[in-house]
Amino acid sequence: MPRFKLTIEYDGAPYVGWQRQANGFSVQEAIESAIQAICGDEAAIRGAGRTDAGVHAKGQVAHVDLAKDWRPDVLRDALNAHLRPEPVAILLAERVPDAFDARFSALRRHYLYRIVNRRAPLTVERGRAWLVKRKLDADAMREAAAGLLGRHDFSTFRASECQAESPVRTLDRLDVARIGDEIQIRASARSFLHTQVRSMVGSLEYVGSGKWSSGDLLAALDARDRRRCGMVAPAAGLYLMQVDYAAEGDWRRE
Amino acid sequence: MPRFKLTIEYDGAPYVGWQRQANGFSVQEAIESAIQAICGDEAAIRGAGRTDAGVHAKGQVAHVDLAKDWRPDVLRDALNAHLRPEPVAILLAERVPDAFDARFSALRRHYLYRIVNRRAPLTVERGRAWLVKRKLDADAMREAAAGLLGRHDFSTFRASECQAESPVRTLDRLDVARIGDEIQIRASARSFLHTQVRSMVGSLEYVGSGKWSSGDLLAALDARDRRRCGMVAPAAGLYLMQVDYAAEGDWRRE
Repeated sequence: MPRFKLTIEYDGAPYVGWQRQANGFSVQEAIESAIQAICGDEAAIRGAGRTDAGVHAKGQVAHVDLAKDWRPDVLRDALNAHLRPEPVAILLAERVPDAFDARFSALRRHYLYRIVNRRAPLTVERGRAWLVKRKLDADAMREAAAGLLGRHDFSTFRASECQAESPVRTLDRLDVARIGDEIQIRASARSFLHTQVRSMVGSLEYVGSGKWSSGDLLAALDARDRRRCGMVAPAAGLYLMQVDYAAEGDWRRE
Repeated sequence: MPRFKLTIEYDGAPYVGWQRQANGFSVQEAIESAIQAICGDEAAIRGAGRTDAGVHAKGQVAHVDLAKDWRPDVLRDALNAHLRPEPVAILLAERVPDAFDARFSALRRHYLYRIVNRRAPLTVERGRAWLVKRKLDADAMREAAAGLLGRHDFSTFRASECQAESPVRTLDRLDVARIGDEIQIRASARSFLHTQVRSMVGSLEYVGSGKWSSGDLLAALDARDRRRCGMVAPAAGLYLMQVDYAAEGDWRRE
């Protein structure tokens, strides 16, 4: 059966998250329903990142095996037609070799977290960012963030329900930038623990507001203790932006 | 009575527009209701730009006279508390001299129009941009836009219900930039005719899709005939970004 790679965008607000769950409607179920509508196949798709309820995606990736060898652009348009009116869109469909696995072939995942730092409530950005009313020092956040880079046991920043075997991850990027009243945090790694980005962002907010020093952040990391996590930033500010894969043919080797 | 300048942000989707109207709820009415709730005053506010239904603002400006000499930040927070849950926020309140008039003292108005140019439907940006599925040539749009700069009779790009005495306006800026799959059009002028920005953007879309040459756009301008307008771009893509005023003391002289 031909395998397709789907690049997917969604507004996470109305969903219980990416993953199919008994307690509500998921992005995965929305897409699988569209596939069934156009193919008749009960196809299961696998995503690169299992985003939580309310988390958005601008570049989620999933793969699916279909009975028919669709022209990729026709598949994309047909899926989008059947996804309506869900706020889920297939940006790109591509034919890929069977060796490609959206989850296990991924080399790097890129997340963006958006904080709006002002007194006034959100309007246009409501549900799309985290409103923090107390003034944050983005420079202090940036300096502290550098201490989390590299290979660490991230148990402090890991949800208790995380199913990963190891709490060790290698954080390649954790940038903090202020653009007007918005603070953008960009995090990249091969993979993340459950709620790791939101746990790091919530703890960086402690640094930005002066509640923690950068030393406190490092001590929290070193403690490898979930109870030392600052707070978990709200889902609405988080975006899965992009997933990187090796060039074709290199998937198994990575 | 002390006069206050309010800088305002809103999601235009749920409103009949900025201006108070008999046929529905307006942004102006939302703010005036909040003023009445905190002051008891039946205060009338005047805005710099009368945005249409569905048009957003990141920097609308209005002024209002109140009985009490509020501390500006207290006024801002009190108004925001009473505006809840409306997607309207007072970003800034400032005490200004009586000579200040949000509409007539304005030196320049800045608008942003957002086009998302791709096949896939909008998700996170739904209601916040215009989705154009056919491929647009942003370079052609930019070159054609330059022909609209300067002082012209903009009758072609003016809604029939426009109440301005003269159709002559001076367009200071009309930039077109592509950022990924988004095309951003920035327009600045001392003032605009009714639906002028959306009429220009809709006509530029004709140029970008190859339906019109830049010569066709200029011929439409020269015709000074509303029937020659390309189309009016949807309200959801338009944002009133900023209104400029002279430094204090210069308001009457401008």
